[in-house]
Amino acid sequence: MKDKIMDTKSNKKAELLSKVVEHIDITGFDARPIIDSMGKMSFTSRDLARATGIFNEMLADKDCSVILTIAGSTSAGGCMDLYADLVKYNMVDAIVATGASIVDMDFFEALGFKHYQAQSDVDDRELRDLYIDRIYDTYIDEEELQNCDHTIKEIANGLERRPYSSREFIHEMGKWLTTNAKKEGSLIQTAYENNVPIFCPAFTDSSAGFGLVGHQVENPGNYMSIDSVADFRELTEIKIEAGQTGLLMIGGGVPKNFTQDTVVCAEILGRDVDMHKYAIQITVADVRDGACSSSTLKEACSWGKVDVVKEQMVFAEAGSVLPLLASDAYHREHWKARERRHFAKIFQK
Amino acid sequence: MKDKIMDTKSNKKAELLSKVVEHIDITGFDARPIIDSMGKMSFTSRDLARATGIFNEMLADKDCSVILTIAGSTSAGGCMDLYADLVKYNMVDAIVATGASIVDMDFFEALGFKHYQAQSDVDDRELRDLYIDRIYDTYIDEEELQNCDHTIKEIANGLERRPYSSREFIHEMGKWLTTNAKKEGSLIQTAYENNVPIFCPAFTDSSAGFGLVGHQVENPGNYMSIDSVADFRELTEIKIEAGQTGLLMIGGGVPKNFTQDTVVCAEILGRDVDMHKYAIQITVADVRDGACSSSTLKEACSWGKVDVVKEQMVFAEAGSVLPLLASDAYHREHWKARERRHFAKIFQK
Amino acid sequence: MKDKIMDTKSNKKAELLSKVVEHIDITGFDARPIIDSMGKMSFTSRDLARATGIFNEMLADKDCSVILTIAGSTSAGGCMDLYADLVKYNMVDAIVATGASIVDMDFFEALGFKHYQAQSDVDDRELRDLYIDRIYDTYIDEEELQNCDHTIKEIANGLERRPYSSREFIHEMGKWLTTNAKKEGSLIQTAYENNVPIFCPAFTDSSAGFGLVGHQVENPGNYMSIDSVADFRELTEIKIEAGQTGLLMIGGGVPKNFTQDTVVCAEILGRDVDMHKYAIQITVADVRDGACSSSTLKEACSWGKVDVVKEQMVFAEAGSVLPLLASDAYHREHWKARERRHFAKIFQK
Amino acid sequence: MKDKIMDTKSNKKAELLSKVVEHIDITGFDARPIIDSMGKMSFTSRDLARATGIFNEMLADKDCSVILTIAGSTSAGGCMDLYADLVKYNMVDAIVATGASIVDMDFFEALGFKHYQAQSDVDDRELRDLYIDRIYDTYIDEEELQNCDHTIKEIANGLERRPYSSREFIHEMGKWLTTNAKKEGSLIQTAYENNVPIFCPAFTDSSAGFGLVGHQVENPGNYMSIDSVADFRELTEIKIEAGQTGLLMIGGGVPKNFTQDTVVCAEILGRDVDMHKYAIQITVADVRDGACSSSTLKEACSWGKVDVVKEQMVFAEAGSVLPLLASDAYHREHWKARERRHFAKIFQK
Ligand SMILES: NC(=O)c1ccc[n+]([C@@H]2O[C@H](COP(=O)([O-])OP(=O)(O)OC[C@H]3O[C@@H](n4cnc5c(N)ncnc54)[C@H](O)[C@@H]3O)[C@@H](O)[C@H]2O)c1
Ligand SMILES: NC(=O)c1ccc[n+]([C@@H]2O[C@H](COP(=O)([O-])OP(=O)(O)OC[C@H]3O[C@@H](n4cnc5c(N)ncnc54)[C@H](O)[C@@H]3O)[C@@H](O)[C@H]2O)c1
Repeated sequence: MKDKIMDTKSNKKAELLSKVVEHIDITGFDARPIIDSMGKMSFTSRDLARATGIFNEMLADKDCSVILTIAGSTSAGGCMDLYADLVKYNMVDAIVATGASIVDMDFFEALGFKHYQAQSDVDDRELRDLYIDRIYDTYIDEEELQNCDHTIKEIANGLERRPYSSREFIHEMGKWLTTNAKKEGSLIQTAYENNVPIFCPAFTDSSAGFGLVGHQVENPGNYMSIDSVADFRELTEIKIEAGQTGLLMIGGGVPKNFTQDTVVCAEILGRDVDMHKYAIQITVADVRDGACSSSTLKEACSWGKVDVVKEQMVFAEAGSVLPLLASDAYHREHWKARERRHFAKIFQK
Repeated sequence: MKDKIMDTKSNKKAELLSKVVEHIDITGFDARPIIDSMGKMSFTSRDLARATGIFNEMLADKDCSVILTIAGSTSAGGCMDLYADLVKYNMVDAIVATGASIVDMDFFEALGFKHYQAQSDVDDRELRDLYIDRIYDTYIDEEELQNCDHTIKEIANGLERRPYSSREFIHEMGKWLTTNAKKEGSLIQTAYENNVPIFCPAFTDSSAGFGLVGHQVENPGNYMSIDSVADFRELTEIKIEAGQTGLLMIGGGVPKNFTQDTVVCAEILGRDVDMHKYAIQITVADVRDGACSSSTLKEACSWGKVDVVKEQMVFAEAGSVLPLLASDAYHREHWKARERRHFAKIFQK
Repeated sequence: MKDKIMDTKSNKKAELLSKVVEHIDITGFDARPIIDSMGKMSFTSRDLARATGIFNEMLADKDCSVILTIAGSTSAGGCMDLYADLVKYNMVDAIVATGASIVDMDFFEALGFKHYQAQSDVDDRELRDLYIDRIYDTYIDEEELQNCDHTIKEIANGLERRPYSSREFIHEMGKWLTTNAKKEGSLIQTAYENNVPIFCPAFTDSSAGFGLVGHQVENPGNYMSIDSVADFRELTEIKIEAGQTGLLMIGGGVPKNFTQDTVVCAEILGRDVDMHKYAIQITVADVRDGACSSSTLKEACSWGKVDVVKEQMVFAEAGSVLPLLASDAYHREHWKARERRHFAKIFQK
Repeated sequence: MKDKIMDTKSNKKAELLSKVVEHIDITGFDARPIIDSMGKMSFTSRDLARATGIFNEMLADKDCSVILTIAGSTSAGGCMDLYADLVKYNMVDAIVATGASIVDMDFFEALGFKHYQAQSDVDDRELRDLYIDRIYDTYIDEEELQNCDHTIKEIANGLERRPYSSREFIHEMGKWLTTNAKKEGSLIQTAYENNVPIFCPAFTDSSAGFGLVGHQVENPGNYMSIDSVADFRELTEIKIEAGQTGLLMIGGGVPKNFTQDTVVCAEILGRDVDMHKYAIQITVADVRDGACSSSTLKEACSWGKVDVVKEQMVFAEAGSVLPLLASDAYHREHWKARERRHFAKIFQK
């Protein structure tokens, strides 16, 4: 009897987890004619075209290093390969992201797991019973996510016991993937191989947190830790090394604020650096709540973080417009003439 | 001295009105590969792909007539030719719109005038002084708009004195354009030539209102009027004649509500009609304010207006996603096998 | 058997329609200390306090007439008595609203019917079967709404056959209510008794539309009609008569645009009038879609409609902030020293 | 000459920083009648009343510990004393916040500095020149903010060199304030005195980050660090100790997600804990972007974090509705019968 319930449950689960989210391939279509047309329109279309133009300018500017910041769930929602392609095709030199984007989504799929298209009208309590987690219209198998936590713990267990920046730890995850990945071409691995550092200023607030708490609890008095001060120090070193910088910001939140703040932090390290020269933010956020995460780029100028000349907000759900921006930039090929920055090497002394 | 000020002013005005809004051409690029990819993603991308799929289904369904509703300023913002193409390529059988979309935007450009891309950082009081009207990031020359009012008055002056539905009046505008248009291929003229009726349930709330008030004031006791009851009656007759219907709704507002209500109104005419079978709404509106204009399509089901099986909300600024939907539908060519409805002929007896 | 289903249905319906929406009483609590405190804060609180201050200024300004515009479903949602109180306590001199606010909501309750608090998790198809209409979290009994349509038809049947402005027709509804109302103190009746004219520029797009189509269909060739041009003409006459004006705008849509446009329309009547001197808009709308309905008040300045000195947008769901604004104004008592305008009398010649 | 420019600048700055943000006092007015009335309305009002009811239930439930999470800038915007009062009057047992809310805002004012009401129409580049930082409509003196960074560095310099959780460090800040505060009654000090622990999972992403990077850079090889894994471990210990929990969430972001995750983390510590039994979230965020930060509470149920029975989302700018909720709860006095939890003592062994 109990077996039968289990069977029904696992059939139902298999049915719900049957339609895989496939990630968009920006090299597979050419968005240039659309972006060109949109530049002659108004409202969001024009904003998107202008943002795309600024992104192309960043890439064409020999002196400009590009920092990508990622908040939200776009990786789970179909932009995972897009982010990896930005690294592969030399359009991004450093990344600052939420823990979820890097661990729960990218590392998770690198382990061979998938995201699924949700079916409407399923009650969340039923999902709970089936160990299916929901992100808006997307499903994740919670048992697979626990595997992800566990792998993080294993990696931590294998490390020297001392404070690490999140960048250092993600570097170790990249190394681990080179021999263990089930899926090729994850963002973490691609970044590792191209010396593009990845930072997660709130690293613990993700599946990594579960693994690392596990590690600390099982190794009392003898564990590694994540030093979030080191993240800020290191990212600021990159800003100093980089000189001119441009920001491509997907959503807001901690990654956005953290990256903008490096300009101010550099002064503390005794270095006078330029504001971020180019800045694009794609967000659904509302500026009227006063939250910094959602601050307009003009507001960031008052803080001395972002220059106002080459900035563009795009108010849209990123997954629906970023593929056009990225495809345009891929096909315009400014990346071909760029020099790779290899910023990760700064820390390999 | 005064002349010099006038000169400076008109130079400044010419400078501000120098970058024309060009309307996107959905036949000029093929959005099918993008829509296909988006269908495998999540969030807004997937919603857009699903909406596009439903629109294609409507077109392929021999029994389905398509009603387009338009609110907002997308016509001014670059979608004007797109709407005309939907009529030209037989993808729309009737239109319900705000007065502004039809008169201030479409008729206005048919008279040879243009919309312009706004430049940022110009004070609205300065625009006022220069007789430039602003719609978000788009400019209009107010003197040209007055010409538009005036033309409406002339058309009204030439008509028999009795109540007209807005559809009848717009029909007259279409006829007038066949001999007087400065720009070919306006929505009004294209619809006129293809017997696609256009309704504006709040017709007076537009540049037409100025012209028609002028007409009434100059012809006391002997003027034509706009009977908004007739609009509702006529649109319901179309619903009855049509049988199965699908809705493509750009924004919400009066056009959306008006069109949905025809199902209920048919009962008053003693006819039992089906709910709208297909429904797509592209909107930035928020459902949480309780406003009907922003009601979800599911809510409309409780009212017996829209069926829930083939419906899709797309929460996005329409100008940025509608070109993809329309280009996909154009290139999939279901319109080639459709029969034209010529609904305008119902009223030509 | 069939009877039993009917019984179950009507029990279910009675259960769903058991929790009445009660309208807030702005005289029953004193919001002044809260508004005072909010004025010293930031973000929406400060905007609301500033808007309230401007509303009080309008009322204290001997030369200023106040026009209230209403879109959305706030009347159904608990603000119905609030609007009537604004008229009763002499804080509003003319009203421009959607048909739904006036007919489906206010007239409907004057007939003795009610709105109900929705219960969550009821499927919209089930509501459909039970003839329950849903507005977000609020229910209406569709059979009662049909009674409302019917009453409108009866009123129309009793009228002389000619074009009417919506104001004229609503005036007739007010007169009818003085002898037939089941509920005292509706907005329509209070306005009727205080000579405050009410306009619905898209009158037919409401329950009134059903009644009026019924009237026209049953009286072929011999029916009254709604002349929406007359609305615009009459409202502009009020603007001319009023001189200085202030706007209190709930939501956007047709009522907002229509009212703002009277400034421009006055020129057509050969009269040079001032821009609206004060303007408050409470809305959840997003300006970034370029839609006129959601244009900021600064944008309206470029059109020469609204002055920028005394204007305030409040981005909030109106039902949650308007009671504070109105209660503050009620208790500050500037209305006590105001002269009533009796604008409805202009048309009673 | 240069002096004169300096004088003009500092005059201008003094003028811009002249209107202090004053924090609302929830004990100074009684919101109960308003909340009662709102409970009988619809839309946001009803949601707010229901949320307030749930908050009162939490306080009346002897077994329920209350966790407050704070994102956004409401502390700067006028809710600073409100948060301190929630602690003072025993309505909150633990706090999880952004670094900015705790350091840049609360600690900053405890040092005697202020936030100011912005004046409109000042260019952000001019603000930059004057060292004024802007949060939407609120100003901060950047020189004072640097003083805040500096104080953090001094506190860090005085500590033993080892990894600290953010809670430990904020505890030290509280201790420091007991002898050094310029303003009494800050949230940090009130929490310190009442043993209410405060966590900042992304602590470095704030003014604290600047101070701590300064500390590390000036003490190479011999510095303290912030172990963000420890935060997660400790907060989970509190969840285990607490048993039943209720969440009052202001905005979303890291604090919200972090707190919800403790339920899942407890399993890793080998403990089976209940989901959060009560949950309120006040946010302007949009769920349709799929972002975790903005996940609805129902979505969190699928993850096994939050129970669906007693949950309420309120879609509003928190500063405009939270004062009503908190004033209602203050005046209903369920806090009088509650036992203080003193969770901070767990870690003082
Ligand atoms: N709303 C209804 O329940 C209803 C019912 C039947 C018919 N109608 C008809 O539909 C047409 C459209 O009217 P409409 O009012 O629904 O939409 P609208 O699009 O004309 O204007 C609504 C706008 O006002 C704002 N708004 C609405 N409710 C708000 C609130 N609670 N707080 C703040 N801002 C708010 C929003 O910005 C929204 O976009 C009208 O002709 C009306 O008669 C409406
Ligand atoms: N906000 C600031 O002024 C500020 C200043 C310096 C640093 N930071 C840092 O930036 C990071 C991001 O924090 P965050 O709080 O700005 O953004 P966040 O993105 O983490 O979360 C903010 C979310 O909460 C909601 N929200 C914010 N304010 C609201 C309000 N008034 N009413 C209702 N909902 C509201 C919104 O949905 C918003 O998306 C943190 O690490 C913080 O320390 C913020």
